[in-house]
Amino acid sequence: MVKKSLIALGALLLMFPTMAFADDPTAGQLNVGLNALWVMLAGILVLLMQGGFILLEAGSTRMKNAGHVAGKTIFTLGLASIVYWAVGYGFTFGGDASESLNKFIGLGNFFFDPGHAAAEGDSYPSSVFFIFQLAFAAVSLSIAWGGFAERAKLSAYLIFTLFFVSVIYPVVAHWIWGGGWLAKDGAQDFAGSTVVHLTGAIGALAATILLKPRIGKFNKDGSANEILGHNQVFTALAVLILWVGWFGFNAGSTVAIGDGFFGFVAFNTQLGAAAGAVAALLISWLVNGKADITAMLNGALAGLVAITASCAFVDPWAAVVIGLVAGVLVFFSAKFFEKIKVDDPIFALSVHGAAGVWGTLANGLFATEELSGKVGIGKAGLFEGGGWGQLWVQAESVIVCGAFAFAASFIVLWVVKQVIGFRVTEEQEIIGLDLSEHGNYGYPEQMKKAGTSV
Amino acid sequence: MVKKSLIALGALLLMFPTMAFADDPTAGQLNVGLNALWVMLAGILVLLMQGGFILLEAGSTRMKNAGHVAGKTIFTLGLASIVYWAVGYGFTFGGDASESLNKFIGLGNFFFDPGHAAAEGDSYPSSVFFIFQLAFAAVSLSIAWGGFAERAKLSAYLIFTLFFVSVIYPVVAHWIWGGGWLAKDGAQDFAGSTVVHLTGAIGALAATILLKPRIGKFNKDGSANEILGHNQVFTALAVLILWVGWFGFNAGSTVAIGDGFFGFVAFNTQLGAAAGAVAALLISWLVNGKADITAMLNGALAGLVAITASCAFVDPWAAVVIGLVAGVLVFFSAKFFEKIKVDDPIFALSVHGAAGVWGTLANGLFATEELSGKVGIGKAGLFEGGGWGQLWVQAESVIVCGAFAFAASFIVLWVVKQVIGFRVTEEQEIIGLDLSEHGNYGYPEQMKKAGTSV
Amino acid sequence: MVKKSLIALGALLLMFPTMAFADDPTAGQLNVGLNALWVMLAGILVLLMQGGFILLEAGSTRMKNAGHVAGKTIFTLGLASIVYWAVGYGFTFGGDASESLNKFIGLGNFFFDPGHAAAEGDSYPSSVFFIFQLAFAAVSLSIAWGGFAERAKLSAYLIFTLFFVSVIYPVVAHWIWGGGWLAKDGAQDFAGSTVVHLTGAIGALAATILLKPRIGKFNKDGSANEILGHNQVFTALAVLILWVGWFGFNAGSTVAIGDGFFGFVAFNTQLGAAAGAVAALLISWLVNGKADITAMLNGALAGLVAITASCAFVDPWAAVVIGLVAGVLVFFSAKFFEKIKVDDPIFALSVHGAAGVWGTLANGLFATEELSGKVGIGKAGLFEGGGWGQLWVQAESVIVCGAFAFAASFIVLWVVKQVIGFRVTEEQEIIGLDLSEHGNYGYPEQMKKAGTSV
Repeated sequence: MVKKSLIALGALLLMFPTMAFADDPTAGQLNVGLNALWVMLAGILVLLMQGGFILLEAGSTRMKNAGHVAGKTIFTLGLASIVYWAVGYGFTFGGDASESLNKFIGLGNFFFDPGHAAAEGDSYPSSVFFIFQLAFAAVSLSIAWGGFAERAKLSAYLIFTLFFVSVIYPVVAHWIWGGGWLAKDGAQDFAGSTVVHLTGAIGALAATILLKPRIGKFNKDGSANEILGHNQVFTALAVLILWVGWFGFNAGSTVAIGDGFFGFVAFNTQLGAAAGAVAALLISWLVNGKADITAMLNGALAGLVAITASCAFVDPWAAVVIGLVAGVLVFFSAKFFEKIKVDDPIFALSVHGAAGVWGTLANGLFATEELSGKVGIGKAGLFEGGGWGQLWVQAESVIVCGAFAFAASFIVLWVVKQVIGFRVTEEQEIIGLDLSEHGNYGYPEQMKKAGTSV
Repeated sequence: MVKKSLIALGALLLMFPTMAFADDPTAGQLNVGLNALWVMLAGILVLLMQGGFILLEAGSTRMKNAGHVAGKTIFTLGLASIVYWAVGYGFTFGGDASESLNKFIGLGNFFFDPGHAAAEGDSYPSSVFFIFQLAFAAVSLSIAWGGFAERAKLSAYLIFTLFFVSVIYPVVAHWIWGGGWLAKDGAQDFAGSTVVHLTGAIGALAATILLKPRIGKFNKDGSANEILGHNQVFTALAVLILWVGWFGFNAGSTVAIGDGFFGFVAFNTQLGAAAGAVAALLISWLVNGKADITAMLNGALAGLVAITASCAFVDPWAAVVIGLVAGVLVFFSAKFFEKIKVDDPIFALSVHGAAGVWGTLANGLFATEELSGKVGIGKAGLFEGGGWGQLWVQAESVIVCGAFAFAASFIVLWVVKQVIGFRVTEEQEIIGLDLSEHGNYGYPEQMKKAGTSV
Repeated sequence: MVKKSLIALGALLLMFPTMAFADDPTAGQLNVGLNALWVMLAGILVLLMQGGFILLEAGSTRMKNAGHVAGKTIFTLGLASIVYWAVGYGFTFGGDASESLNKFIGLGNFFFDPGHAAAEGDSYPSSVFFIFQLAFAAVSLSIAWGGFAERAKLSAYLIFTLFFVSVIYPVVAHWIWGGGWLAKDGAQDFAGSTVVHLTGAIGALAATILLKPRIGKFNKDGSANEILGHNQVFTALAVLILWVGWFGFNAGSTVAIGDGFFGFVAFNTQLGAAAGAVAALLISWLVNGKADITAMLNGALAGLVAITASCAFVDPWAAVVIGLVAGVLVFFSAKFFEKIKVDDPIFALSVHGAAGVWGTLANGLFATEELSGKVGIGKAGLFEGGGWGQLWVQAESVIVCGAFAFAASFIVLWVVKQVIGFRVTEEQEIIGLDLSEHGNYGYPEQMKKAGTSV
């Protein structure tokens, strides 16, 4: 019964390995059932995070765009589900490719039919694994929307969803989680600081570069204006929902109950999130003289993003350090992007990008030998006696995945821009996307009172 | 260990059958524990759907009624719990009736005491089964409120809850799930497209007919005005919460972990919902030239409602087809009800009624022979080589349950109308039910700013 | 397999006892996994309750304070997590103290490292137990914020979190749950009517006494003004989220799946909540002539608070009675506190204080002999043939815990008041804490429209 959680991540990397209950089929069935329940519930928790994104994006933007921002999440979640089912899952985990092709992309399982029960020898039914993986793809997509906010056409959302969920995200996920070449190099990204968060953030970066800043964000002299989100109750609740959902995201990535290792992963996740929130509030208090709520909410999320790669690889004290650094980093990162005049309305580039990079690298600093052996495919980190090797592998995965995701996203969106147009007209942006894209305000009574040109 | 999920639905139909672990009591206890945990969590997910209804109803109506709309959900959930405990559960599942009476109604288990643990031979404790079933009754009730919105007196809510939860819903549920005559005819409604959704929608229909349309909904020339809901962030979040809760609703209706079949049910549920959302957005874009958010949200819900009857009976491709049809259907259904001057503020008649009928019938079209044999009590559907038989049984259950629910709801509400009055006064409706029924606005600061007559 | 749930509460009281599967290690591991999953999910549900508190507090207060009220919950959750990890958990459950010292406080496990898996002989991994207990501490803290609302400085929140989570809450929790002297006296508080709710409410009481009422709450002639919360959709949704989370809170306190007893606990919880909601609505309708929504929401919560101590000890009928009394009690309690000019913006003193006391005492009235023997450490209640003994023990725990929590909270906050100041200035209170403590409105668009002096 030792080393069960080796099977755990093994399951993720190698898909559906045989179980350790060959001599006791009743216990084996119960074990499959227990894993199935955990993966199902973890998938539900990660899907619940879309509620967090609805509130985070809507709360961080203006009232005239609120219905559009919230509603498009349901639309793109629906479309992403169909696309991932038809194509994306197969490119990530399909096992029909030749060995040399498989380094780069999976093949097979298109229009996926998971069967009615767990297959002989599997640790859980592939139906629940699909839902879990789909929920991850949808999170990555929702992160990318941060760069689209308040000025992209609805049709651009539709087209980007098609390409991002069918190819861009699956390729990165295959490289690290699907047995691709980065997995073979020993890249460790337990629940997706790079795969999910950085990939999404890079999509947001490509979008915001092509869209250019929102009207009114930067003045002619280069100084920035603060465009406040309209509802901080929404954003605070969003962070709480994302925090809670993250237990499915991180601890669920064990995809096994085993000896209870998933609890340790959850424990580290809680410490990382907490440290990020505290650090960000204190640094904003110190630097600005005001305890900025948005900064603090970003700090909690940055702590979560950063601990995501390493939650299964590090000691609790290191989880706290990773969270603290992430909280400080996200504060200065947001200032940096504003300074270089990149408009990042939902802070996707800082929260998911900068903290995603930090979290992936932190694995190469803090991963212990014991845990790298238990659940990983790499080596101990620099501060744990493993030398520079793992840090380099982690840096490699950041650079390569980031470059691929940027190039692919940029090309798709550049073509969109040339062919159908990416940004709404100036007039539409001023009256808001609720009216321009959908014909009605999301807050019809409140907007009417205020006049139609807010 | 084969055919465990036969026990699953069997458990629902026949209540608490003996387990398949007679020769291994330790494994048997673990199996009961695993099922108990799943049914408990599924019940929690379905209760969470009340949060979706709070947001859906409040967001779809006007600010002057928001506190009333939201608050009454907590009140009626509380009252429904007491009534279902005292009476409703016993009429649904009580086993004391004679065989001939039992075709029509259950008897026994009033003021239900579930005992402290799973009874000998049961697959799960009846305590968690009660919570799960209560949550379903509460969903059906919340659907009915769609027909009451923005003009019914609070006392009418109280009285309708008493009758709906004690008799109307339990009778339908008994006929199909409690071993009643429709179950004996082979009607298949896995998680309640008819039992829960159609019954609730029919209650809404009876209410809206008796109440007549809201002031301002229809003009003298017969044309309709759009009365927009006040908060589309609420409605979008509502749909997400309902979507997530639906995994408890549908996959939880296996009431067993078994071989992991519940994952397949969840898989189909996700595809149905996704297809509904996409189809509805595209059809509204096509027909109206605008991608209407409300239409799209209704599409996601209609996909969920429609797949509910069939999620355990059909192949994944059929789940997509069922969802696509539901998304298109709900769009035209909403137009139809507006055309015949039926005021349906929360779209209950289209989302839960039309899509509930479609979902129930779809079982008679797409149910496969294998799955009907595995979890069902009927035959394969028309397109799966089963002929017209199952489709007819499904149609029968729609017609009979719909007729009973309409007659019973109409009588109760007609008496309410005669005796204490069903609708608030015109003046009360204009100032809003927050003031008329509760004495304070739900949004006191915002309403004050706007004057009291919004 | 009998008496498994004895182990359940035993686990809570005695920490990590040996399992009952010594002769079957495979089954033992599955049992640990099943418990681990339940405790993890229960912890997640209790953490989700922070979303309820965000909405409850924000919805019950004014728009000018909404960002502050919501945002500070994330900050204090983060800080509480770090403090509880470093210190609080060790003072509650640490086993290094001598026997005589252990009566009063635990020692050990500071900067807690739970290990990677369940330890040999434990029923679940201590990682998930930590998360579950941390979530309880965070709930108690959030209750205390009720007394701080709309006028305390952010720095006071920071300092009170440090002391409350490191010492005040841990001492009370140790006395009753950590094997301290009240546990040895036989005090029964299954999930914390006293430990969590009363302790938090007493913190709120100390705060509101030291802060004095909000500007405008009481007139010079002693009469009270109603300061309405700004969003009743938020408060209703809050109650639903708290209600749902409470299944983790109460049923999760079994910390074991065992024979399914947790389902019975959940069953009683549902009845108590429901009865509280119904009773409070009806009493407000009767007394005031209006069905007050706030009163009803408080009734549901009071039912939940009251059933918390007794959910594992009483018959279903008694759960209904406990809830009904709580619903009536909270209504009159709120009137009482207003009459004696104690300003209680979120009704913490009535909902968590009065109902917490009632719930703890009710255990001494309704606890059955069978259930006290099965899960408890005390005797049957007065109405169940146990005489006055248990009632006295329950009263003792209320008085002693209440006195300690009040003295400790008062001293901490009195020192805060003297040294750095506890309350914002009059001008800051009038413009709102969003601006004074954080520099931006939580609702910038809506407040701008209304002018800055609302």
